[in-house]
Amino acid sequence: MTKAPTARTRVRRLHEKAAYDRATIDAILDAMPVAHVGHLVDGFPVVTPTLQWREGDHLYWHGSAASRMVRAAAGGPVCVTVTLTDAMVLARSGLEHSVNYRCVMVMGTAQAVTDPAAKARHLERMMEQMFPGRWAQLRPMTAQELKATAILSLPLSEASAKVSASAPGSTDPEEDRDWPVWAGLLPIRLTMEKPQPDPDLAAGIALPDHAARYRFGELAE
Amino acid sequence: MTKAPTARTRVRRLHEKAAYDRATIDAILDAMPVAHVGHLVDGFPVVTPTLQWREGDHLYWHGSAASRMVRAAAGGPVCVTVTLTDAMVLARSGLEHSVNYRCVMVMGTAQAVTDPAAKARHLERMMEQMFPGRWAQLRPMTAQELKATAILSLPLSEASAKVSASAPGSTDPEEDRDWPVWAGLLPIRLTMEKPQPDPDLAAGIALPDHAARYRFGELAE
Repeated sequence: MTKAPTARTRVRRLHEKAAYDRATIDAILDAMPVAHVGHLVDGFPVVTPTLQWREGDHLYWHGSAASRMVRAAAGGPVCVTVTLTDAMVLARSGLEHSVNYRCVMVMGTAQAVTDPAAKARHLERMMEQMFPGRWAQLRPMTAQELKATAILSLPLSEASAKVSASAPGSTDPEEDRDWPVWAGLLPIRLTMEKPQPDPDLAAGIALPDHAARYRFGELAE
Repeated sequence: MTKAPTARTRVRRLHEKAAYDRATIDAILDAMPVAHVGHLVDGFPVVTPTLQWREGDHLYWHGSAASRMVRAAAGGPVCVTVTLTDAMVLARSGLEHSVNYRCVMVMGTAQAVTDPAAKARHLERMMEQMFPGRWAQLRPMTAQELKATAILSLPLSEASAKVSASAPGSTDPEEDRDWPVWAGLLPIRLTMEKPQPDPDLAAGIALPDHAARYRFGELAE
C-alpha cells in the first residue's frame, strides 16, 4: 500500500520489499485467484476484477467474447495486479500505520488465445487448479460455450512482487517507541464458511473433496 | 467477475446486477478499504493497491508526495475499483461457474488536496473511520510528515456497483439441473485473527476497543 516515507523512514523501511524472483511471484499468483486488470478504453484506464490463473510463465484470464473488457484488453497494454492483505499495522504515529500485504503486478500486452483446442485446455486447467477432479464430472462444454468464451494471456516477463511484512511495532522509529498507545498487528485471514449445497441436489451427491478442501486466498495443497 | 454469457444465460442471469444507487455504492466502499487504482503512466495503464476511504460524495486515497503513483494520478484520468469476494459458485457446467462478489468502480479525474489544514482533516478522518478514537492517542503528526503525504480525491459522480449474489445452484439452466455433480456455494469470509501486540509495549497498555472491534471487509459498527 502507498505510504508517505520521510528520508528517515525510507532507510528504515526495509520490511517493504520489491521482489522479482519467480518463486515469490508464483506463490502470490497461485494463492489468490482474484486479479484487477487495468486496460485502456478510449485511452482511459479501466480496472476490472476477474479470476486469473497461472500456467508456467503466463498468467491467464477469461471473459465473454462479447465483453467490452476483453475486446479492449486484447492486443493492448494491460496491468494485472493481484493483492493479498495480511494485516493492518497499527503504529504510534499516523504516518507509520500501514498494511502488511503481498502483491504482484504484471505488465505487458494481452494476447487472445484463439485456437479452440488450446482454449478448451486452458479452461480445463483453470478448473482443475482450483477444483482438482471436477472438470471430468461436469456437463461437457459445448462448442457454442467455447466460442462465447475469450481467453487472454500475459507473459510473466514483466512481473514484480511487493511484500510488506512488518513485525508488530517495528514500523515506529526509536524516538516514538515509548509513546503510550497500543501498537501491533491486526491480522486478517480469508476463511471458508460452511458450503451451501443447491437445495435441489439429487440425494446421494455428497460434497466432493475438491470443494471441501478449497481455500480461497491460500496456496493449493 | 467476467463470464461468458450465451443468449440464454444473458436473459437468465438477473442475479448479476449493475447498481447506481448511492446506498449500494457507499456500503461497498465503506466496508472494504483496499482499492485498486488504475492510472496512466506514459499512456500505459498501471494498477496499484492502496487504501481508500469515503467522505460524503468523494472517495480519497493517500500516498507519498514523492511516489510515481501519486504524481501520475493527480489531475489525470483514474479508475478506482473496490471488490469484495463473497463465494465461489459451483455449477453443473464449467460455463455457469462464477463468483459472488460486490464491486464498485469509480471513474473520473483525480484531484490532489493541497491545503495543509484540509489534508490534516482528511488524514484524521481516515484514521477515525477505521479506528475511532485513535487519532487523539497518537504521537501528533509533524509538519514534515504532512508535507510528505499526498492526498487524492475523486468524486463519486461516475460510480457504479456490480453485485453478483447467486443462490446455491441457481446459475444452472433447467436442462442441466439433473446432472449428477455437486453444485452450490463455497462462501468466503474475511476474519480477524488474534491481535499481535508489539512485544516492547509498555506494561498497562491494553488492546483498545478500536483495535479489538476492527473488522476488515465489513461495515463499521
